[in-house]
This record gives sequence, C-alpha cells and structure tokens, in this order.
Amino acid sequence: MSQDNDRIDLGSAETELQVNTIRTLAMDAVEKANSGHPGLPMGAADMAHVLWSRHLRFDPSNPAWPDRDRFVLSAGHGCMLQYALLHLSGYDVSLDDLKQFRQWGSKTPGHPEYGHTPGVETTTGPLGQGFGNAVGMAIAEAMLAARFNHGSSTIVEHWTYVIASDGDMMEGVASEAASLAGHLQLGRLIVLYDDNHITIDGNTNLAFSEDVGARFEAYGWHVQHVNGHDRPAIDVALTAARAATGRPSLIVARTHIGFGAPHKQDSEEAHGAPLGAEEVKAAKKAYGWPEDAQFHVPDSVYAFWRGVAAGGRKLRTDWDERFAAWRSANPDGARQWDISHATDLAAGWSKGAPAFPPDVKGMATRAASGKMIQWLAEAVPHLVGGSADLAPSNKTMIDKAATVGPMAFAGRNFHFGVREHAMGAALSGMSLHGGFRPYGGTFLIFSDYMRPTVRLACIMKRPVVYVWTHDSFYLGEDGPTHQPVEHLMALRAIPGFTIIRPCDANETREAWIAALEHAGPVGLVLTRQNLPTLDRTVYGPAEGLRKGGYILACELRVDDLELILIATGSEVALAVEAHKTLEAEGRSVRVVSLPSWELFEAQDAAWKESVLPAKVTRRLAVEAGRSFGWERHVGTAGRVIGLDHYGASAPDKVLAEHFGFTTANVLEVAREMLGAR
Amino acid sequence: MSQDNDRIDLGSAETELQVNTIRTLAMDAVEKANSGHPGLPMGAADMAHVLWSRHLRFDPSNPAWPDRDRFVLSAGHGCMLQYALLHLSGYDVSLDDLKQFRQWGSKTPGHPEYGHTPGVETTTGPLGQGFGNAVGMAIAEAMLAARFNHGSSTIVEHWTYVIASDGDMMEGVASEAASLAGHLQLGRLIVLYDDNHITIDGNTNLAFSEDVGARFEAYGWHVQHVNGHDRPAIDVALTAARAATGRPSLIVARTHIGFGAPHKQDSEEAHGAPLGAEEVKAAKKAYGWPEDAQFHVPDSVYAFWRGVAAGGRKLRTDWDERFAAWRSANPDGARQWDISHATDLAAGWSKGAPAFPPDVKGMATRAASGKMIQWLAEAVPHLVGGSADLAPSNKTMIDKAATVGPMAFAGRNFHFGVREHAMGAALSGMSLHGGFRPYGGTFLIFSDYMRPTVRLACIMKRPVVYVWTHDSFYLGEDGPTHQPVEHLMALRAIPGFTIIRPCDANETREAWIAALEHAGPVGLVLTRQNLPTLDRTVYGPAEGLRKGGYILACELRVDDLELILIATGSEVALAVEAHKTLEAEGRSVRVVSLPSWELFEAQDAAWKESVLPAKVTRRLAVEAGRSFGWERHVGTAGRVIGLDHYGASAPDKVLAEHFGFTTANVLEVAREMLGAR
Repeated sequence: MSQDNDRIDLGSAETELQVNTIRTLAMDAVEKANSGHPGLPMGAADMAHVLWSRHLRFDPSNPAWPDRDRFVLSAGHGCMLQYALLHLSGYDVSLDDLKQFRQWGSKTPGHPEYGHTPGVETTTGPLGQGFGNAVGMAIAEAMLAARFNHGSSTIVEHWTYVIASDGDMMEGVASEAASLAGHLQLGRLIVLYDDNHITIDGNTNLAFSEDVGARFEAYGWHVQHVNGHDRPAIDVALTAARAATGRPSLIVARTHIGFGAPHKQDSEEAHGAPLGAEEVKAAKKAYGWPEDAQFHVPDSVYAFWRGVAAGGRKLRTDWDERFAAWRSANPDGARQWDISHATDLAAGWSKGAPAFPPDVKGMATRAASGKMIQWLAEAVPHLVGGSADLAPSNKTMIDKAATVGPMAFAGRNFHFGVREHAMGAALSGMSLHGGFRPYGGTFLIFSDYMRPTVRLACIMKRPVVYVWTHDSFYLGEDGPTHQPVEHLMALRAIPGFTIIRPCDANETREAWIAALEHAGPVGLVLTRQNLPTLDRTVYGPAEGLRKGGYILACELRVDDLELILIATGSEVALAVEAHKTLEAEGRSVRVVSLPSWELFEAQDAAWKESVLPAKVTRRLAVEAGRSFGWERHVGTAGRVIGLDHYGASAPDKVLAEHFGFTTANVLEVAREMLGAR
Repeated sequence: MSQDNDRIDLGSAETELQVNTIRTLAMDAVEKANSGHPGLPMGAADMAHVLWSRHLRFDPSNPAWPDRDRFVLSAGHGCMLQYALLHLSGYDVSLDDLKQFRQWGSKTPGHPEYGHTPGVETTTGPLGQGFGNAVGMAIAEAMLAARFNHGSSTIVEHWTYVIASDGDMMEGVASEAASLAGHLQLGRLIVLYDDNHITIDGNTNLAFSEDVGARFEAYGWHVQHVNGHDRPAIDVALTAARAATGRPSLIVARTHIGFGAPHKQDSEEAHGAPLGAEEVKAAKKAYGWPEDAQFHVPDSVYAFWRGVAAGGRKLRTDWDERFAAWRSANPDGARQWDISHATDLAAGWSKGAPAFPPDVKGMATRAASGKMIQWLAEAVPHLVGGSADLAPSNKTMIDKAATVGPMAFAGRNFHFGVREHAMGAALSGMSLHGGFRPYGGTFLIFSDYMRPTVRLACIMKRPVVYVWTHDSFYLGEDGPTHQPVEHLMALRAIPGFTIIRPCDANETREAWIAALEHAGPVGLVLTRQNLPTLDRTVYGPAEGLRKGGYILACELRVDDLELILIATGSEVALAVEAHKTLEAEGRSVRVVSLPSWELFEAQDAAWKESVLPAKVTRRLAVEAGRSFGWERHVGTAGRVIGLDHYGASAPDKVLAEHFGFTTANVLEVAREMLGAR
C-alpha cells in the first residue's frame, strides 16, 4: 500500500487504465491458454485494484514478511486476477509467466497453488475452502498478537482479506467458518463478496435466493453493500470494514461478471471459458484499449504499481526496524517467536516424553494421546488445538491453558463447535499463516466431513495433526453411523497423507513425536477403548513406530519363519496374544506392528525386507476395517481378518465376538494357514 | 393425530404424565444400557408430545402409508425420544425392545436406523444429515403433489417434520440444505430446533453465538421463537407454521436439556451418558413419578396414545378411500403412481436404449450419459435429477423437462446450487420418501464434499445415482485441486457402494441400466474427454459391464495366455491399442474391461475365473488413479500403471505424456513383463 495513495483519484482515467490492464491481461491469458475463467477477473478488477493499491499491505520483494496482510482468492478459478496483480505489483511473476497460463510447469496454474507461485497464500479452487483458510489465518494473527504485542510494541497487526464468490457463499464449509469467525469476533478478517449473480448453471436465482448480507449479520458480522464497480465506494467500505474492530466484515459488492464484454457480460458464458477472439476485441474496444494488443501493459501502469510496491516495501522496512527493537527489548519473546516460526523443532526436543509402564489393563490410545498433549504443551509452546465439540472424548484439551474465545486469543484450546469441515480449513489456515503447530480432533467417522480440506492440506504439505478417536466398531453402542469401517483405507488413499494408528500408549507417544517431526499432514487414529500397554522389555521398542512398521514379537526359530501376523492399533494385542499361544505350540511366528503404511513405505528396501521378508508369503493381517487394500502387505497367498460390512449397535465385546476380532479367531485362521489344525 | 385432540388440555396433569412417561422411558433405557443420550429426550419431550399427538399424521398399523407425515429426528443421538413415542403410539416396538436399547440385534439401536425399526424414516446420527434428508423428503412431497393432485383430488398432502439440535444447526450440510429449502419455498417443511444451549463441550456459547433464527429468516424461512416446555405455545407455533404456506418453518424452541434432573439439567453431563441411578430417582421424584419404577407406563398413557393412533388410522383409511376413488377416476395417473412407487422397473424396460456406432473419435462418457439420460427420461418417468451447479459440464439436464424451482414442482431438473453435500442428502431424502429415482451430478473431485451422505445412502441401501464427471487428470488445465487421484479407491472402500467407470459410450449405456436396476447407491464415474467408441463386432459386447468385468479383447492363443491387461474407463482405449501392437508382434495378450469392481465381485467364481484365470499371474492394470488397492486384481506378480501423486495444470495430452498414460508406456511395461524388450 503506497503511503501516497490517498491522493490517487480512484475515478480517474489513469485508474481506469490500471483496472483495465488487469482485465485485459486476464482475457488474453485465458484466450492464449484456450482455457480458464475470464469473467471473475473482469468483474472483480475494480475492487481488487482498490484493495491492492490502497489497503493491502504487502512487499513483493519479501513475500514472507510475517506482518504482511494476507490475501486469499477463495474463488480460485478467477486466479488470473491474482496473477495479473502479482505481476503488476512486482512479485516474481513475469509477463512470460502470464503467457504460460495453465501450461505444464508454469508459475500460473489453473488455480492458485501455495508454495508454487510467490504471493499465493493458500491453494484454492474447491469452493469455500479459501474462506475457511482465511478464518484460520485471522485466528492465527489474533493469537500471535495476543502473545507478542507487548505494551506499545505492535509487531503483529495485519489483516486477512478475501475475495469470495457466490459459490463460496453456498458451500457449507464457508457457512461453518463464517459462524465461527463471527463467534470469535475476528475484527481483522474482511471479505469482499463478488456478488455477480452468475454461476455455471446461469443466474444465481436458479438456486440461490437467500439474503447473504442478512445471514452474515446473523453470524455477528459487520455487513456493507456497495456497487462493486464504484471504486471510491469500495474504498470507503474497506476503510469502514477496518474500523469495525471486534467484528469480521463482509462487503457485498454487486459486480458484473465479464465486465465490459458486450455480448457476454452478466452471462454464464463469461464464467469458465475463453471469450473468443471477437468478444475480446469488442471488450477491449469498450475499454478504449488497443484492440489488437495482447498482454499489453502501459508504462504508466507499471509505474503506478512500482509506487504501490515501494510503499509496501517502506512499510516492511519500518516493521523490520520495529521488530529488531522489539527483539532487543524482549529477548524471551524473541526466543519464543523464533521457536514458533521455525520449520523444525529443536534437535532432541522429544527427550523426556512420557514413558508408559507395562500394564495389562492399559489405557485407550486417545487417553495416552491426551497425556502426551499435556507433555507436548510444555515442549512445543506453539502447539495449539482443539476439537469439533468432542473435547472430552478426543482428549484434546491442554489442561494448563486457557480457551480461545471472542476477543480472547491468549489461550491454546479451541472449541470449534460441531463444524468439522471449518475446523479442518481453519487448521490449514493457521498453519499457512505461521507461528503455530495446530491440531484438531473429532471422531474418525467424521473425517469424512473434513475430507476436502484434508486433501488440500496434503497438496500444500501443511504440518497439521488430526486427532481422530473412536477409530473402529469398538466404540460400541453408538452403532454403524459412528463406527468407521472404510475410513483407514480411504484416508491412506490420499497422496501425501500420513496415517498413524498406534497400538498402545508408548506407540501413541511415538506417533505424536513422528507427527510433529513430519513435514506434512498427519492423521492420528486412536481408540476409544483401553488397550494393554505392552512390556517393551519383552516386545520390540515402541520407537519402531517411527519407521512405520517393525518387528514386535520375534519368531521362535530365526531360520524358519512360518507365518507373519501383521496388525495395527487395537488389533496388535490380538496378534500378540495369538503369538503367545502359537509359540507355546512350537510354531515360529512373527508379529509385525504396522502403525503407519506411509512411514513404512518411506523406509529403504533393507528395512522393509527385514520386517516383511519377501520369501515369507504366509501372512495374516488383522485390522478392524476393510480388508480391501491389505493385499499390498499380505499378497495373494495371505489372508486378512477385517471388516467388510457396516458395524452394529451393541457393547464392543459383543461386536468383537460377532465380527471375529478375538484371539480365538486369529488363532483359528493362523492355524488354518499353518496347516496345523 | 386424534381427531378429538383439540379438546385435550395441554397443560393438564394427564398431559404432564404422558410427557413424563417419554422422559422416564428414555432415562430408564439409557440407564439399563449404561450408554446413550438421556438429555435430549428429556428436554424435547414436551414439543415431541405436542407434535406427535396433535399434528403429525401417522398410522402405526401402516408405517408405509404413502401420505403419512414424515418425522425426522435429525439429532439421532436422542433416539430414545423416538423409540418411546413409537412404542407408546403402537408401532411394532415393544417395551421389551426398549429394554434392549443399544443391544445386539435389538430394534432399538444407538441411533435410529431406517429399514430396521418401523416408523424410522431415515438413519440419523451424523449431525446435519437428517435435516438434509428432510429437505429432500419435502421436495419429493411437493413434486408428487404437482404430479398427482388432480383438481380437488389431493392424495398427496403431507408435512415433513424435523427435530434438530444445536449440532445440526452448526453443520454446513444443514446450512446448505436450509438455503435450498428457503429458495424452493418448501412450505410443508417444519423444523423444531431444540435450542438447549448445551453441546458436548459445554454451553453452546463456547463456540456458537450466532442468531439462528435471523439466519433462517435470511434463507427465506418463517421463524418463530417459543418456550420449548410451554406446550400450548408449541401447539400454536406448529399451527402457525403449517399456515405459513410458501415458506419452510423454523420453530426455535428454548428447552432445558435433561429437564427435571435436579443436578444435571442444563449441563453437558446430561447429554451423552446415563444420569446415574441416584439422579434418575431424583428426576422421577421431581416429576412426581414412582421413584423405583422402571419402564413404567401408566395405563392412562397407553389409552391416550391408543386414541391418537386411532385418529391416525382413521385419517389413513379416509385417505385409502380417497385414493381408491382417485385411482378409478385417473387410470393414467394410477399407472404412473404404480410405476413410480414400484421397487423395480418393469421387465424389459431397457429395450431400445441407444446403441452408439463405432467411432474412433468417439465421445466423452459424460456426453454418452447425457444422451442416455434423454432416453431414460422417457423410459423411467420418475427419474429426476440435477447437478450442483455443473449441469452443462455434467450433462445432467433432461432436455424436454422443466426445472424445479420456487413453488414450481412439476419439473424434473434440479439446480442444487454449489451445494454438493446438501444435494447428496436431498437425493437420499427423495429416495426415502418414495415416488422418484433421483440422480445428482458434480465433478468426481467433489464427491469428497458428499462423502458423509453417500455413506449413509449406502447404509440405507437407497437407489440413488451419483453422476460424477471429470474423473481424472484428463480434465487438464484446472489442475491438481480438480483432478481426482485417490477418489476411485476411496469410494470403492465404502461398503455397499457400487462404482462404475465405463470405457466408452456403449458401456455408459450399460452403466446407467445397471445403476437403475441396482438396489443400492451407484456412482457413475465419467470422463470429460472424448473416448473412442469401440467396435463391438471386434471386441466383447458392452453388456459385459453388467458383470462388472469381462473379456474385451481375446488372446491370440487360447491355451497360451501370456499377459492380461486390465483397465477401466478412459484407460481401456490404451489397453486396446497396446493389445493390437502386441498381437501383431505375436504375443498372446487379453484385455479385460473392469468397469465395476463391486459388480464383478458379486459374480460367481466361474465367471471371475473365466475373466481373470488364477494361473495367469502376469497382469498389468492401467487406471488414472492410485495404484493402491489394485493388488487385489493384479496380485504380487502384477504391475499397475497408476497415478500416486497429485496432478498438474496443463492440457490433458501433455499430462498423459508426463504421467505415463500413453500406449507407448503401456507397451513398454507390458514388454518388460513379457521379457521381450
């Protein structure tokens, strides 16, 4: 934001030129790619111009400046709007990059991709997700401010701005996130709603006739209505939105999709396809633009944005000075800041984590996770998290920390409400913002509600931890609607996702350590019911979990391995019991604990062969979920005790009998395989 | 609903006794099961009593009466409320059944299950889903009314009532569904919101401080606020809600969870656990109930509900008469009614379905699906459907039919808006209601947004068809956020779900036929891009699809099958091309088209062995999705050309080269396997 921008006449011909540069770049890039969405950039160019030139605080020479304002284009299909602005304002996005829109390896893919294009704060496209991420970013800002702004030293003081579309407003995840943002009174979250009345099917009134502004008022938002092409009015509205502290702001900006295209403005034809050469020319003519010029940027427009960027750089260097002074004055704070903004935890950070003594009764892995969280709360001061209204069940509360609430951001515990999807999106947003290691809990069954946002976290490689408890039919009486069956496999199918299902309290400790040392999203899959804590002087060390799979119980005769029992989580205890009996019968059987397929997959071939030797094809897997997929580890000669149908409502021990999850059944199948009945 | 009920004094001691019977039955059942949710039944008993005794039209002796009012307990955890009412009013739910609450095989599982307990209209528990189903039921009612109410003959004229909780209100799927219901002006949908201010984490104000009533007004709903324990006020509100035609109604009923429990009322402790023997006694004392009596139902209470049931039976027999008269007067309508309410389609119904001539250029399977839908629209008059704002892309529109819109229900095409989750829930609701075969489309990537509701459709075995197009990276420029990778496997993992991914236009025809003849949910997975239409005089007949997998191209030498190429959907063409080349080289290779793993799995062993002989272990699968899971069909000796990472933004042919989906790559791997490079 240029410091001199207040003197710019937003209604001037020069401003018109600047806005039309955005529009024509978008049209030209879509046309050249023969693919893309020209309508939104054309319609939203006015408000985006005002936002970027007069409000958004950013420094293209330092896209990682911690106190920059965040800009989220939730309507990611309109990404040429963002790419044009990134180019014009001086980010490392060239005119050639714009010409490579939507081509292999280019900086300008079909939807904005975090980590790929400088200045892109989150990957968007699936509607509603960017909105949810932005809520998480605004939460993180408020929490950092509560931690690090000492007295008059305000080193954290930025806004999160969103441009959202009709589609974003219709998605449930955005509704959930908006309700949460209103509850938390996130005054530094400002959403520009590009209300263009057009979706892919046609006019929004085909399906969408609610009063969006009134809905957001019901959520507790500050709501304004403006003509989305009246730049001075947008400017006033943005200023008012920033002044409305204590409430997130929605600016309902009535715009015209494909603004200026004589035949396609206000039509769904402008939404998701090139306008066509003739219509592009006609639109340029309407703008007073050279009709045949392509990717044309007037020098004065570059000059203008150089001025904006210079203003932003000045803001950043001023901040650098304030930050340096703050660091000197607050060495403890500076140390905390560094810890919380580092990618990795300090070497040896996990020393002293709780060890759980052997115990036949044991404890639920959710309970072990809860104890581990208490220890982690000390060791990882920027670990924060919560649950989607299942805190007592998920054991996600940090005992010694306060709760985050309206205008109260010094705490570490979240009540996300019954909003799993928004929780997931907010966790990603907090992680994207920086300064925190967030986690969030719900029942494993409700991972389905979060799936779109989990996938995006995986695409973005965000180190978020999902605490998913009640991980099988063993939850008992709540019945089939609450008993996961397919979820483990369905989550394992997501590329880049790491699932860990520990078998006892000590593996749960290792699972948390592995999760926090991992560079991407991790799902912890935990039991409701107690599991015995294994005696690690008898069985393989729990640290084996870090390799995904390891030998838990050795075979009787090293040179005669007859059968491998493979299990995860709660079924490991069954395998261990079966192993004892088989060993007593003189059978040479190994038990492998395989808590994380993905961590195991990442090991070298020697480790994998040492755990699961290729020549041993008699393998029996036991897992309280679908058998589908286990062929990878048991092969065609192997067998699986799994669950390939829905559960039922009854006490867990009754279900275990009916579903074959008993030591007796494991023994029966093992003996069949050993030919020793 | 008793005809005499208008004379009942809702404030009388007798009514109090009736309500407290519901409460004590719920407390006792939860206590006996040592598991469950007593708080909601105790808090919502007053409004449920008024609803069931004075408004809901039902006949316990005929739970399938088509014109019955639908009752949905969206807050399914409160199911003892519903079970108590089902028992008292005379459904086939005995006092012994209540005593078996949450036990193996009982009629009273931990959450209400459709098809398991008479009078339960949908399976609920995962919050927000029942609300969405109810919107679908109300849509179906309105659509049936538009079709079958001729002049003064109103044979379809019922309401859909919902009891929903705070949790339902927080879930995005309910927000989406409420917006859709408001848009469609569903006047016969009435929701009682059990506003008890308590969730599992504690007071709702920990996470939820929006004005729910104002939000629903913004959606276009009629909204009222009542004291949820003031039965006359509830009665008045329900009457007003029914009078507010042209708008769905929300009644915000302020209640007290665990009403009457002296220490746990208004506390989260009343939500999800037994109250404990002492608290149960104390509550009974507060009600003036015999403290030690369990499962006690005063005779007068049974007598009261017998009266209610008799009134309902009278309404039903009156309807039977009207319906019989209507049938006589409207033989065409009666025929349509029978067709649309039959479980199965008439024998031979699919004769005359379009055949697509061989064509090298071919067409996208989404386009073939679109053509098929036009034919089906004639053959299956109760087929209705739409898309979540992707109709032009999904090709889901019935050309010759009108669109369903506000107060306009004679059409067959839906615009669900950008609300995939609500679409899924509404489709299930329409199917549950009866009278329609619904389908709904979106991009395959967005099946993730629908997953919770798809799972419930599978649990309930509802014959819903999902039309999921743009099924792989071949969608091209939209990039990784829009390119499915893991979705096929993740959907195959859902028990009871049938996924079909046809390889060309004729398989698409067969896929639709198979889908409509199937007794459960089916997902059609279709391409954006053109696929060649195979010459079925050369290759195996497309009807093979009905068996899930079949031989498409035979091997050169019957007694020397060297390699099996297995593919689905768009990759079948690659296998066919590779087969040609290998055959020319003298290799004896078979191509198997495997469009549906589930249909194939359901075949007898002989068919499976004939298609994939066990002794042939050289198998190469080709599918543009995760290789994970394919081990089931290719075994340990086989290989898979799959995609185990995210896609990218570029033209599809460029991506195909980079990702190895070329005939050349298939040939290379095949030759490696054949040892013939």
